[in-house]
Amino acid sequence: MKKPIRNPRITASFQGEPGAFSEVAVRQLLGDDVDIFPCQRFTDVFDSLESGKVQAAVIPIENSLHGSVHENYDTLLHHDLPIVGETYVRIVHNLIAPPGVSFRQIRRVYSHPVALNQCLRFFEKHPQFEKEPFYDTAGSVKMLMEQNLTDSAGIASAAAAERYGGVILRKSIEDDRQNFTRFFLLKKKTSPADRSSKDPAVKWKTSLVFSTRNIPGALFRSLGAFALRDLNLIKIESRPLRGKPWEYLFYLDFLGHVDDPVSRNAIGHLKELADLLRILGCYPAGHV
Amino acid sequence: MKKPIRNPRITASFQGEPGAFSEVAVRQLLGDDVDIFPCQRFTDVFDSLESGKVQAAVIPIENSLHGSVHENYDTLLHHDLPIVGETYVRIVHNLIAPPGVSFRQIRRVYSHPVALNQCLRFFEKHPQFEKEPFYDTAGSVKMLMEQNLTDSAGIASAAAAERYGGVILRKSIEDDRQNFTRFFLLKKKTSPADRSSKDPAVKWKTSLVFSTRNIPGALFRSLGAFALRDLNLIKIESRPLRGKPWEYLFYLDFLGHVDDPVSRNAIGHLKELADLLRILGCYPAGHV
Repeated sequence: MKKPIRNPRITASFQGEPGAFSEVAVRQLLGDDVDIFPCQRFTDVFDSLESGKVQAAVIPIENSLHGSVHENYDTLLHHDLPIVGETYVRIVHNLIAPPGVSFRQIRRVYSHPVALNQCLRFFEKHPQFEKEPFYDTAGSVKMLMEQNLTDSAGIASAAAAERYGGVILRKSIEDDRQNFTRFFLLKKKTSPADRSSKDPAVKWKTSLVFSTRNIPGALFRSLGAFALRDLNLIKIESRPLRGKPWEYLFYLDFLGHVDDPVSRNAIGHLKELADLLRILGCYPAGHV
Repeated sequence: MKKPIRNPRITASFQGEPGAFSEVAVRQLLGDDVDIFPCQRFTDVFDSLESGKVQAAVIPIENSLHGSVHENYDTLLHHDLPIVGETYVRIVHNLIAPPGVSFRQIRRVYSHPVALNQCLRFFEKHPQFEKEPFYDTAGSVKMLMEQNLTDSAGIASAAAAERYGGVILRKSIEDDRQNFTRFFLLKKKTSPADRSSKDPAVKWKTSLVFSTRNIPGALFRSLGAFALRDLNLIKIESRPLRGKPWEYLFYLDFLGHVDDPVSRNAIGHLKELADLLRILGCYPAGHV
């Protein structure tokens, strides 16, 4: 008997329990035909890719309410793992309980404190619920399914409900619907396929990081490399450079493919001005 | 009998339990001679100042590991409460237990998940400890003192140990000592005393927020208002403008007093270019 021929499946790492919003990002970026490798810490996610244990890694980089995940920006800088994709996940919080448990039975609601705090209006409307902080959103659903709690619910993604067999009792109970998390897809090396697309509608983004000396106007001149070439900046963020007080790193995203001549010239121009310059990746722009 | 004459004490609000790192910031900014008004949510902190219930409010705005607290930047924009001071608090996590409880008795360690995650090396060295997520760092110490737990400790500030009568069993157990949180001091109105100082060594910072249309080079030209006058930018951060996709707000700090002629000219120049411009405050620069 012959074995069926299959494309080799890839494995993608992320931080959190299965069913976490990071797994939702994995599915948006790589589809359902991918194995997952959940990690406890962000550094484990990077290490699993670096060591070849997985072929892709997905990390949150920015949330529309809470801002950038600076820890991950810093760790990106300490690895040489290119960004090859991005996606935006809308953070939808659901009230999830084991099958058979009704809304009226619930007295305790478990979730990560950040998630609990993003559903305060829901708790104000239902003062009978006790908020119970838990390590992880998806992990709270896993725990109450394992322990078969009949007076408790968790707050997590629909993916967590599906993964652990929980029932969604109330959908989208978050206070603010403008709650998006942006994720990066990292690989160990960029393949030519990662930087090409047959779809002319694809817009490309390039992410880079640079530092300037702390002289007045240094940032202004650096941005000139882009402005004087009509390249559009999407995001810029400053970050203190560790161990060098009053010097800064700037993380910058601009619209453009890194191989376009105008982008290449802008990057060359920036190199003349910057102490440090690294291209973090070039990838199709995601949509909120 | 005459009542003793006293200066009116002011009350300052902050988010968290008494003993939270925000209370440490209150003490750094206003000294010990101040009453505190702890709030559950950041919006409560702003509202308490707006309504006149307190005379000062202290909010975290940025952490060296986690980045900006965007929620507070957004809320600043929706109120007219000037920033009149800033301070940096080093986040030192301590293992705290009720008096008489020894290190060897401890099995469970309670704290906010962010704090637990900032002490992972400590937990790796002591695998006998179960990590127990709790709502608040200081609140975990309050709880175990109230319940007089003899097998548990909390992770919180030294101020929390002092406030609740706990004993610090291990000092500074955080993984990363470069963990600082920057706090703003807000008042309802700026008084002339807030914007003057007899100390010639004081450096002044001005914080403002502006928006530009999404045209290439808009940010470059805006920064020109400062660069062409040799004013030094300290921090810049972009933030999507809610409800206006692809338009951005920029939060910017520069070194300079808002009443200096050169600052005034720069702000005037920026006004010509910006759709929106608001001065958030002018205050003596804090030190890490």
